[in-house]
Amino acid sequence: MAKGQKLYKLAKTIIPGGTMLLSKRPEMFLPDHWPAYFSKAKGCFVWDLDNNKYIDASIMGIGTNTLGYGRKEVDSAVIKNIKAGNMSTLNCPEEVMLADKLIEINPWADMVRFARTGGEANSIAIRIARAAVGKDNIAICGYHGWHDWYLSVNHNKQGNDLSSHLLPGLSPLGVPKNLKDTVFPFSYNDYDELHKLVIENNIGVIKMEVVRNHEPQNNFLKKVRDLATEKNIVLIFDECTSGFRETFGGIFNKYGVEPDIAMFGKTLGNGYAITAVVGKRNIMESAQKTFISSTFWTERTGPTAALKTLEIMQKEKSWERITQLGKLVRNGWEEIAKRNNTLIKISGIPSLSSFTFDHKDDLKFRTYLNQEFLKNGYLGSSTFYTSTAHSEKIISEYLTIFEQILYNISHCIEDNKSIDEMIDGPIIHSGFKRLN
Amino acid sequence: MAKGQKLYKLAKTIIPGGTMLLSKRPEMFLPDHWPAYFSKAKGCFVWDLDNNKYIDASIMGIGTNTLGYGRKEVDSAVIKNIKAGNMSTLNCPEEVMLADKLIEINPWADMVRFARTGGEANSIAIRIARAAVGKDNIAICGYHGWHDWYLSVNHNKQGNDLSSHLLPGLSPLGVPKNLKDTVFPFSYNDYDELHKLVIENNIGVIKMEVVRNHEPQNNFLKKVRDLATEKNIVLIFDECTSGFRETFGGIFNKYGVEPDIAMFGKTLGNGYAITAVVGKRNIMESAQKTFISSTFWTERTGPTAALKTLEIMQKEKSWERITQLGKLVRNGWEEIAKRNNTLIKISGIPSLSSFTFDHKDDLKFRTYLNQEFLKNGYLGSSTFYTSTAHSEKIISEYLTIFEQILYNISHCIEDNKSIDEMIDGPIIHSGFKRLN
Repeated sequence: MAKGQKLYKLAKTIIPGGTMLLSKRPEMFLPDHWPAYFSKAKGCFVWDLDNNKYIDASIMGIGTNTLGYGRKEVDSAVIKNIKAGNMSTLNCPEEVMLADKLIEINPWADMVRFARTGGEANSIAIRIARAAVGKDNIAICGYHGWHDWYLSVNHNKQGNDLSSHLLPGLSPLGVPKNLKDTVFPFSYNDYDELHKLVIENNIGVIKMEVVRNHEPQNNFLKKVRDLATEKNIVLIFDECTSGFRETFGGIFNKYGVEPDIAMFGKTLGNGYAITAVVGKRNIMESAQKTFISSTFWTERTGPTAALKTLEIMQKEKSWERITQLGKLVRNGWEEIAKRNNTLIKISGIPSLSSFTFDHKDDLKFRTYLNQEFLKNGYLGSSTFYTSTAHSEKIISEYLTIFEQILYNISHCIEDNKSIDEMIDGPIIHSGFKRLN
Repeated sequence: MAKGQKLYKLAKTIIPGGTMLLSKRPEMFLPDHWPAYFSKAKGCFVWDLDNNKYIDASIMGIGTNTLGYGRKEVDSAVIKNIKAGNMSTLNCPEEVMLADKLIEINPWADMVRFARTGGEANSIAIRIARAAVGKDNIAICGYHGWHDWYLSVNHNKQGNDLSSHLLPGLSPLGVPKNLKDTVFPFSYNDYDELHKLVIENNIGVIKMEVVRNHEPQNNFLKKVRDLATEKNIVLIFDECTSGFRETFGGIFNKYGVEPDIAMFGKTLGNGYAITAVVGKRNIMESAQKTFISSTFWTERTGPTAALKTLEIMQKEKSWERITQLGKLVRNGWEEIAKRNNTLIKISGIPSLSSFTFDHKDDLKFRTYLNQEFLKNGYLGSSTFYTSTAHSEKIISEYLTIFEQILYNISHCIEDNKSIDEMIDGPIIHSGFKRLN
């Protein structure tokens, strides 16, 4: 058995759920066969515990590494500060420099707080917004982390309101039931639904992802902004995933609409843990009226990595490059699927592209896809997050393999033949599932 | 003006509250004069932005660096893994090795989850415990972070129930009011109060710091354990601060009482952000029935640092050394205070010692103390967290300075003379306070 799978078998007995992040569970890619652990990662290459080398043509650390793994300038800056000292009784000056830089990037904003994870940044933003507005009720649209305030949505009367925002079938076990009916989800592009929610539920905060799978329609974002302004609602854009992918900052810059608070996360430190809450002074100052404080928010590596990452992103216009490469991937998928008479549905922005097969055997097909990619030396799946470490050549070669795999799938579809015998192990998980 | 204070003036205009951690606010040490930021930290030495060198005889990164700043073996392990790659689509094997090690250290436990901050570890433990027990109500004793579940205590009818656990006068602004009466504080060593709470409020979880300022009396910990067992309550020991300070693991080991879940934090990675939730299988498995997942929990530096830190702590028995040094500090304080007819009250375990002056001018005296320490090249205060980078010689020299300062304070007391004219700036803050 490969070393990675062996270690993962141990992991499942001593770590509930096996991994720290649902999206990195081997079962999400290829149960029993995914390499699971890495020894080395550089550029868009990843080495497993048996020293097999793969091209990462999947989630690139779940979108953390826009500049590729082990980006030299970022690592050098971090290592330099580790050698000087990464922690002390005094604070690190980099946090002030980073706050300053983020305000330069977001001229609508005046103040910044930092954390280490997206879930924390989301909770800080919610705390500050609730404190500023003096109301508890929130309208949400999108994915905003694992914390109580967010998961409490599934305590509302429908019981599964997060299905289309987070994951279907998620029980809010362990989330206080008293939080019922404090957070209300709305559908993207459905302004009337949001308007009704706001009127009926004394909403004080609207938090949303600006764009995930669909473009805004009928001036949706502008209408949300106007509603928030009119009703004294704090408008929060969660840019933890979308930030720095299509502009040097929030994707909201594309649409001419500004929030009161925005969070940045995944790609801010190119793989180092750092997240930021950026906002307008009159709202952010409410952080001073409540207690928001944590020891490890003071560690130096996070802001150090972010400062260097921002510098490189700005210089290289990384958002343009990853969007360009993402379009290549999408167009490739589209053309190849068409050529092979296979229906696929592509979603996400170009640099964060995904697809599903429009077919009842979608999960089986995707299991086969991942399996064959792996055999060909790719961490490949129906998701491709691009980085500047990818290249036209890499994507072209990837698409050649993709076409070979899709050709086999299309023949199963055409001949109405089961794909089961071509699959070497269990089917991939599509979401949250208890591991045994 | 010193560079640090200049930067801090900017920080207060762009970071609400000025810093990420309340305890690292310059106002807590010496308003207008504290160096505020570091350029370098090594062993027990810290350099400010003007390259002034200080001996850290205060909070040592708020207790994160038991092995001293920039401990070579830990930094080398982290740098090695940064050079190999700190993040990828695959998971890092170090998290499994660290889980395994923590279970070896805690033979009562079977499973582990990791996070990056103490607040997160506390929230994960609460989520898992609530999910396991199927009840929302919690009894708490001590400090457990900044999250909603904890601060909600101040929504209870008293309105200031956290005064003696966290900080006095803290408004729970921005915390949902529906959380009122879900979390109930109890006083340390007051078993009857806890028993009554449990009976009257359908308590499902007890979370406490094992020891903070007082030793357990009348078999308190054992009685709490028995009560939890009898009532099917999940007992959580928060060892984020106390862990690895008096034993190789939880301080609960000293008292022969085991929890169902324990969290470790501050000193686990010797200054790198890593926290752990360790617990029994039947309870930890509840993590699989709820959603607990975060991107940056997968970063490699945290578990890498912790593995090496644990190795060194075990080899050097660091907990014995820091306790021994802590006792030197305490005994020194005590003898010097006595010799100078000054009443002080010492609290905390030896390696985390603090004192206050038993005098109405306590805050002024402590301001003067910090001021004079700084003039003598010490980040010194009425708190001393010891590390293995300290030495008998350093502590002896520190105590010589301490005696000179205390001598002056004692003369103010004896002569009933105001200390005001000896203080060059504003008085220190004693807790949470809005900054202007």
